[in-house]
Amino acid sequence: MKKILLSFLILCFTHLAFAEDGYELWLRYHKIENPSLLQKYQSRNKGVVFTANSDRLKAAKKELALGLKGLLDIDLADSQNLTSGGVLIGTPESSGLIAQSGYAKEINGLDPEGYIIRTVNIDGKQITLVAAKTDIGVLYGVFHYLRLMQTNQSLDKLAITEEPKLQLRVLDHWDNLNGTIERGYAGYTLWDWARLPNYKSPRYTDYARANASIGINGAVLNNVNANAKSLRVEWLIKAAALADAFRPYGIRVYLTARFSAPKEIGGLPTADPLDPQVRQWWKDKAKEIYGYIPDFGGFLVKANSEGQPGPQDYGRTHADGANMMAEALEPYGGVVFWRAFVYQNERHIDRVMNGYEEFKPLDGAFNKNVFVQPKNGPIDFQPREPFHPLFGAMSKTALALEFQITQENLGHAGHLVYLGSLFEETLQSDTYENGKGSTVSKVLQNYKKTHGISGIAGVPNTGTDLNWTGHLFGQANWHAFGRLAWNPDMTSEEMSEEWIRMTFSNDKKIIDPIQKIMLMSREAAVNYMTPLGLNHIMNYDTHNGPEPWHDDPVWSAFDYHKASESGVGVDRTRTGTNAVGQYHEPLSSQLNDVKTCPPQFLLWFHRMAWDYKMPSGNTLWNELVAHYYLGVEEVRQMQTIWNSLEKDIDEERFVHVKSLLELQEKEAVWWRDGCLLFFQQYSQLPIPSKYEQPKHSLNYYKRIPYPYNWKESQYK
Amino acid sequence: MKKILLSFLILCFTHLAFAEDGYELWLRYHKIENPSLLQKYQSRNKGVVFTANSDRLKAAKKELALGLKGLLDIDLADSQNLTSGGVLIGTPESSGLIAQSGYAKEINGLDPEGYIIRTVNIDGKQITLVAAKTDIGVLYGVFHYLRLMQTNQSLDKLAITEEPKLQLRVLDHWDNLNGTIERGYAGYTLWDWARLPNYKSPRYTDYARANASIGINGAVLNNVNANAKSLRVEWLIKAAALADAFRPYGIRVYLTARFSAPKEIGGLPTADPLDPQVRQWWKDKAKEIYGYIPDFGGFLVKANSEGQPGPQDYGRTHADGANMMAEALEPYGGVVFWRAFVYQNERHIDRVMNGYEEFKPLDGAFNKNVFVQPKNGPIDFQPREPFHPLFGAMSKTALALEFQITQENLGHAGHLVYLGSLFEETLQSDTYENGKGSTVSKVLQNYKKTHGISGIAGVPNTGTDLNWTGHLFGQANWHAFGRLAWNPDMTSEEMSEEWIRMTFSNDKKIIDPIQKIMLMSREAAVNYMTPLGLNHIMNYDTHNGPEPWHDDPVWSAFDYHKASESGVGVDRTRTGTNAVGQYHEPLSSQLNDVKTCPPQFLLWFHRMAWDYKMPSGNTLWNELVAHYYLGVEEVRQMQTIWNSLEKDIDEERFVHVKSLLELQEKEAVWWRDGCLLFFQQYSQLPIPSKYEQPKHSLNYYKRIPYPYNWKESQYK
Repeated sequence: MKKILLSFLILCFTHLAFAEDGYELWLRYHKIENPSLLQKYQSRNKGVVFTANSDRLKAAKKELALGLKGLLDIDLADSQNLTSGGVLIGTPESSGLIAQSGYAKEINGLDPEGYIIRTVNIDGKQITLVAAKTDIGVLYGVFHYLRLMQTNQSLDKLAITEEPKLQLRVLDHWDNLNGTIERGYAGYTLWDWARLPNYKSPRYTDYARANASIGINGAVLNNVNANAKSLRVEWLIKAAALADAFRPYGIRVYLTARFSAPKEIGGLPTADPLDPQVRQWWKDKAKEIYGYIPDFGGFLVKANSEGQPGPQDYGRTHADGANMMAEALEPYGGVVFWRAFVYQNERHIDRVMNGYEEFKPLDGAFNKNVFVQPKNGPIDFQPREPFHPLFGAMSKTALALEFQITQENLGHAGHLVYLGSLFEETLQSDTYENGKGSTVSKVLQNYKKTHGISGIAGVPNTGTDLNWTGHLFGQANWHAFGRLAWNPDMTSEEMSEEWIRMTFSNDKKIIDPIQKIMLMSREAAVNYMTPLGLNHIMNYDTHNGPEPWHDDPVWSAFDYHKASESGVGVDRTRTGTNAVGQYHEPLSSQLNDVKTCPPQFLLWFHRMAWDYKMPSGNTLWNELVAHYYLGVEEVRQMQTIWNSLEKDIDEERFVHVKSLLELQEKEAVWWRDGCLLFFQQYSQLPIPSKYEQPKHSLNYYKRIPYPYNWKESQYK
Repeated sequence: MKKILLSFLILCFTHLAFAEDGYELWLRYHKIENPSLLQKYQSRNKGVVFTANSDRLKAAKKELALGLKGLLDIDLADSQNLTSGGVLIGTPESSGLIAQSGYAKEINGLDPEGYIIRTVNIDGKQITLVAAKTDIGVLYGVFHYLRLMQTNQSLDKLAITEEPKLQLRVLDHWDNLNGTIERGYAGYTLWDWARLPNYKSPRYTDYARANASIGINGAVLNNVNANAKSLRVEWLIKAAALADAFRPYGIRVYLTARFSAPKEIGGLPTADPLDPQVRQWWKDKAKEIYGYIPDFGGFLVKANSEGQPGPQDYGRTHADGANMMAEALEPYGGVVFWRAFVYQNERHIDRVMNGYEEFKPLDGAFNKNVFVQPKNGPIDFQPREPFHPLFGAMSKTALALEFQITQENLGHAGHLVYLGSLFEETLQSDTYENGKGSTVSKVLQNYKKTHGISGIAGVPNTGTDLNWTGHLFGQANWHAFGRLAWNPDMTSEEMSEEWIRMTFSNDKKIIDPIQKIMLMSREAAVNYMTPLGLNHIMNYDTHNGPEPWHDDPVWSAFDYHKASESGVGVDRTRTGTNAVGQYHEPLSSQLNDVKTCPPQFLLWFHRMAWDYKMPSGNTLWNELVAHYYLGVEEVRQMQTIWNSLEKDIDEERFVHVKSLLELQEKEAVWWRDGCLLFFQQYSQLPIPSKYEQPKHSLNYYKRIPYPYNWKESQYK
């Protein structure tokens, strides 16, 4: 009794002193506030029949107990007998009741990760059935069931059937073995390498729970700029310990593979993918890995890109390299994700076209268990890019799409930018591969039919920060990626509402303003950073803040904007580099014609005079100015909306977001003024007087260091 | 009403899903379990008269509200009228009631940081008075008052007067500007440089609360291996933002100063401390810093040590360098901590003697606002060292003692080693400076009289890990350092009991076994790492695990153990290097004579034959073996005791500690077997057969990498 009392007190007062730090993510399970709804839910959870004999079912049951306790103040009453108003959970294998129900056949026909949630009558009792073909489906079903209550949906007449539309839903962590995270802004790696494998942090389980709750089923543990050491035994046993921690939640572990590993750690004189010794080395390595991690997912490889070694070092193709690894993994069911993010660092070549040019000719040359993985756009995770032209161009090769969840080019952990909008924009872009309606989403989904497998990857924004993502709203981007990986046709409206309900409140007076902020935020960022198709004008080193003036022999922003007195933008039409030729018709012609090219991609595909007359009636220059000013204005609107919520949101989270919005406003002005003053050198046109004029000179903005100083006195 | 309900639910259920992660530290404020005690406490907190008009008093009041709510479920009822059974809090300045009470004179005579907690009668009402001369004293008093309840002490007849025995109680963070922490094992820096100064993490406040609760009043933000950039304006404004966050909790910010900063960031051709331009640069820099941080504490400097620049580069002395900085800081009340951790990297010189030799001749040459700061021992934070001979040798120079709280040489965040015992051992060591009883503690305290100032520093074990210190028991070492900084004569029994009560339970059945583990843990570590005065035989690179075999031209473990077939240990007697001559009599003679030298320092001061007959009757070799085996045995005892607590401790913390003890046991065996097999090469003597024999060869242990692999099959 004392022990129970103590437990309750511990539950109740743990973190009393440090509430609302964001650690819980969207898995909050706070008690349902609406009394009548609470009563309804309680009446639908009168008894739970849930036999859990596997680690995954146990994880599901633990989650359910946590959820019912928190949401409904109900202690999970475990029963073998169905009660009206009860819940039956399991698989046909785990539950005789389910096996003998009329639903067994349907359930066994589901995708292995699918589930149903149904209001059904069994033995004359009306109950809720949460059932799946496999244990992991049950876990997903339980998370969905809890989510229904977290978002205040009805539990009456449930008729939910869910199956993932993409099979491999993976986070690609860019975590280095020394603990730092490339382009990570929320602290450092979650993997406590020094104390693994002996000590397993409880945070691994919380990480896995969060991922499983949104359907993510894989994690590449380490950076694509890979360290060959990660394939050595002393690291493999650590990866295996993580795999053990993740397994109950259906997360498979993957590793990046440095192409030159056979030389660096294998003692071979070459890493040539056609060399028999090299091929054997990878086979032996795969066997070794599967000895430690029986459900190892496979390799992610960045090869012959940005200085990484690869098959081209030996005159071989990407396919030669990828297939070698695929062969080694194939006996165990592993896959290779082979990145299509490659470019020649030669200034006469249009970088936008590189990936397509290298991979399109290889269509069909890859083994079945290889994914070629382009980024969402053809450059590099810019605030806005057209979709990568390889989507729709590789019918004989499985493609996996790589999104970036971490905000490398979108203000790091300082800016509120909801990426649901960006992800949706790419996924709903029409490739016209098979006529109208061949969206990127459909292209990705279709590989299940043609290759038996489909996939998507996200480079996460997670780290050791208490709130996981640095910016509280960064959590929404992790959530959105997971939800879209499960169903790429979800809308950002749906996803953002769900996230707000689970994170803040089910009160429309709170949901609506927060959703408004989220849904306007990405366009705001594009406006104050890179409107009208501009791109790659960020700080060369940090990728935060403007640096369209960067110009050195290795890398020049001028290759991306080509600003001069005669105009701005890159001519990628048929009379230019013909990047438009990499897209299907009618899109290709639409992009090619300045009159039909969507304005948001204007300067991406076209070079325009400063006084070009836009459809709005503005000159190009004035339109550019208008966008930059609008971006700052939108951030200020976001501030106003957020500040109106002061009384409705706990102090800790309110102040957190408020102060970050203040930072964002300052940086938005930095972007706007820095870029406009830079381009003005070439346009020689004024910023119309109706706008607040830049307070500083271009030189001032050029001298802002990073980490920068906002004390104005310092950089006059 | 709804808002209140919501707040309660948030308090109650936040972190329900992720309870007991250690984030709360010892500031848990869980409800008092004993019902009669609860009632007593409630009757002693019937009303609080506490006018809080300053940031510090507000912080104190907020803490009190948090504590009373959690411990007693009492909402702080703010009143202007005294009630019997109430509490009166404040200073004579903040409270008319206190000013007019009979206690005002006594209170105004307290140390500025002191306070009283008294059961008193005012206007015929029996109340508890928590009062101080200054606001920060009130905050300390409130923490003490809450601690009384947290540790289940009586609130009747209170008659507490507390004043700190050392004035400057400082944490020296070895945090780099890139976020890593030198010798940090609990994640990465708590200072979120990228988002400072605009975004202030709530964790800064929690950090400050934790420190204030144990009386720490200063923080050096950055590494002693300093980066001159940290003195540039863009970093100063970040440091200033941290100072703003810490100020309500009485924590002053200090910075490390790279001696060559005038050259590196000041554009001067020299950093010669006697150069007028250099002196002016530091004066200007001090003025600039105080413009941003009006209560800036001062500089910590590592100069002419391990490659750091310093005054000797210009033929000047440490005093020349320190005094230059002291002059710059003096107008603003700042101080210089000048480290005495210096050594020539030349193998013919006894490193143990270096600090004394360099600084003793300078006694009296330092300005009043300079501390010379030796480490606790003359080498470098070894598991056990004799106290540094400068203590007791510098009557004309204020010394601050530097302890290491982070376990650089004590198993990192993997080993449970309670350092209260180590700290106490040093502080209670008798220097005999003024005859018997001149303990290091007294030497430190005495500087207040002679110099108006006294101080102590600790290199903390804090980082971004959820539980702050990596190992939950690392929190106890942070706690112990703070408590000893306030009162260097506290015992490790007192401190450990207090910490256990605040962290785990007030139940003696839980306190006693945990305390037993803590109090045996440091001796266990010495036994399995460096018994009998051995030292500096750890891994050269990581400082974890044994490497007595390390031997290269730069650094050789053989300089520290001098093992050969003729024996082991370093002759530092009068016929050897005469390091014993740096200590006062009678200690010097006691150390000099092998028969009176304490066994724990035997091989530190003496070179002994392997078959030397110890007082125990054992040969030296067998005694060494016995100690190493005892160390492992003690860890196993710690495991047994901990495991017996399974039913009494929440699962999360139980498993955390259990799995780390398993790791510790493995590493203890690694230390034992690695060291004994190494020394056995020279002793040529067997490990007596009554002991479990090493399972592996010396080569096996030499090949264990770090991060290492415990799969035995791999390193045969």
